[in-house]
Amino acid sequence: MADSPNRTAADPNEEIMRATYRALQEHGYADLTIKRIAEEYGKSTAAIHYHYDTKDDLLAAFLDYILDQFQNTVHEVETTDPEQRLDLLLDKLLVDAQDHLDLLVAILEMRSQAPYKEAFRERFQQNDEYVRYMLSTVIDQGIQNGVFNDVDAEHAARALMTIVDGGRTRAVVFDEEASLATARQTAEEYVTAVLAVEQSGDG
Amino acid sequence: MADSPNRTAADPNEEIMRATYRALQEHGYADLTIKRIAEEYGKSTAAIHYHYDTKDDLLAAFLDYILDQFQNTVHEVETTDPEQRLDLLLDKLLVDAQDHLDLLVAILEMRSQAPYKEAFRERFQQNDEYVRYMLSTVIDQGIQNGVFNDVDAEHAARALMTIVDGGRTRAVVFDEEASLATARQTAEEYVTAVLAVEQSGDG
Repeated sequence: MADSPNRTAADPNEEIMRATYRALQEHGYADLTIKRIAEEYGKSTAAIHYHYDTKDDLLAAFLDYILDQFQNTVHEVETTDPEQRLDLLLDKLLVDAQDHLDLLVAILEMRSQAPYKEAFRERFQQNDEYVRYMLSTVIDQGIQNGVFNDVDAEHAARALMTIVDGGRTRAVVFDEEASLATARQTAEEYVTAVLAVEQSGDG
Repeated sequence: MADSPNRTAADPNEEIMRATYRALQEHGYADLTIKRIAEEYGKSTAAIHYHYDTKDDLLAAFLDYILDQFQNTVHEVETTDPEQRLDLLLDKLLVDAQDHLDLLVAILEMRSQAPYKEAFRERFQQNDEYVRYMLSTVIDQGIQNGVFNDVDAEHAARALMTIVDGGRTRAVVFDEEASLATARQTAEEYVTAVLAVEQSGDG
C-alpha cells in the first residue's frame, strides 16, 4: 500500500511517509516516536521536525498518504458492470487488506484515538464518505440496470462498510486473518440475499 | 452495565471496579492511571496496589468484570422461540450498547491493544466465543424448528458478530450513535434475507 513504485523516491516527504510506515509496522502506534521514524528515515529528528511540528501532525499526514493511496487503488477498478464492480470494490476493502495486517493494527490504534484527536477523526470520516460514495453509486447503477432491488443505496453502503469495519477490527483483535474472509463472505451474502434481484429458476 | 444494584457495594473489589469504570469514562484508557482510579475510589493508590500489581492487571480484571456483567444480561433473555431469541440477543449487543458509548470508547482502545497485551486478547476472545456460542445455538434451534434455512450456524454467528463489531467500531470512530442503529438494521436484514425461511405469499 505504501510502496507504490510510481512515486519519486527522492521526494523527502515520500521518504518520511515510507519511514513512518516501516516504524509503525515495527513498533505500533503507541510506541511510535519521532526518533524511531528518524532512524528508519536515516536522518536526524530535526530533519523530520523541519516538516512536521509534532508526531500527531506527522501521523495526520501519514493518514492522508495511505488513504490517498487506497483511493488510487479503488480508482483502478475499471469495470462498469455494477455487480462485478461492487465485487471488486469489496475485494479491495477486504481481500487486499490481508497483505497489510500490520498496517491494520496501527490503523485500529489510530481509530481508537479518534474520539480524542480531531485530525484523525476527520481523516477517517473523509475516507469513509469517499468509499461509501463509491459503493452507493454502484448500487444505484445496479438498481437502474434492474440487477439490484430498489433498496436505500445510502443505507446499503453503510451496511457494507459496517461489515468491512467489523472484519478489520476482528482481524486485529483476534489476530485472525480468517476474520477478513468471513467478512468478505458476509458481504457477499448481503449482496446476494438483500441487494441482488432474485433470479427466477423457472426462467 | 457496571451499576447492577444487586451487587454488594461493600465488596472492595466491586468498589474498585466501579471506580475504574468512572475513571475510564472520564479519562479514557490512554490517560488512565492508578492515581485517577484511586481518586474515584476515595482511597490511596496503595489500597489499589494491595489488590492489583499493575494497571494492566487491574484492567484485565475490569474486562472480566464487565464481560461477566454482559454475560449476565444475555442470560436474562428468557424466550425460547429461536427468531424472538435471536432478535433479543442482537438488541442486547447493539441497542443496549447505546447507553454505554463512553465504555465502548474505552473498550475499543483496549481492543486495539490486544495485539500487544495477551491478557486483553484472551478476554476478548473468551467473550467472543461465549456470544458466538449463544448465537449459533439459537440459529441451530431455528434450523431444527424449520424457521431458519439449513445454513452453517458457526459462520452465521461469526457474520452477525462481524456486523456487531463493525457497528461498535464505527460508533466510536465517527462519534455516531446512529452507527449502532445501522448495524442493528443490517443484522436484521441478514437474519431475514439469509437465515429466515422464505414465507410463501401464496400459502
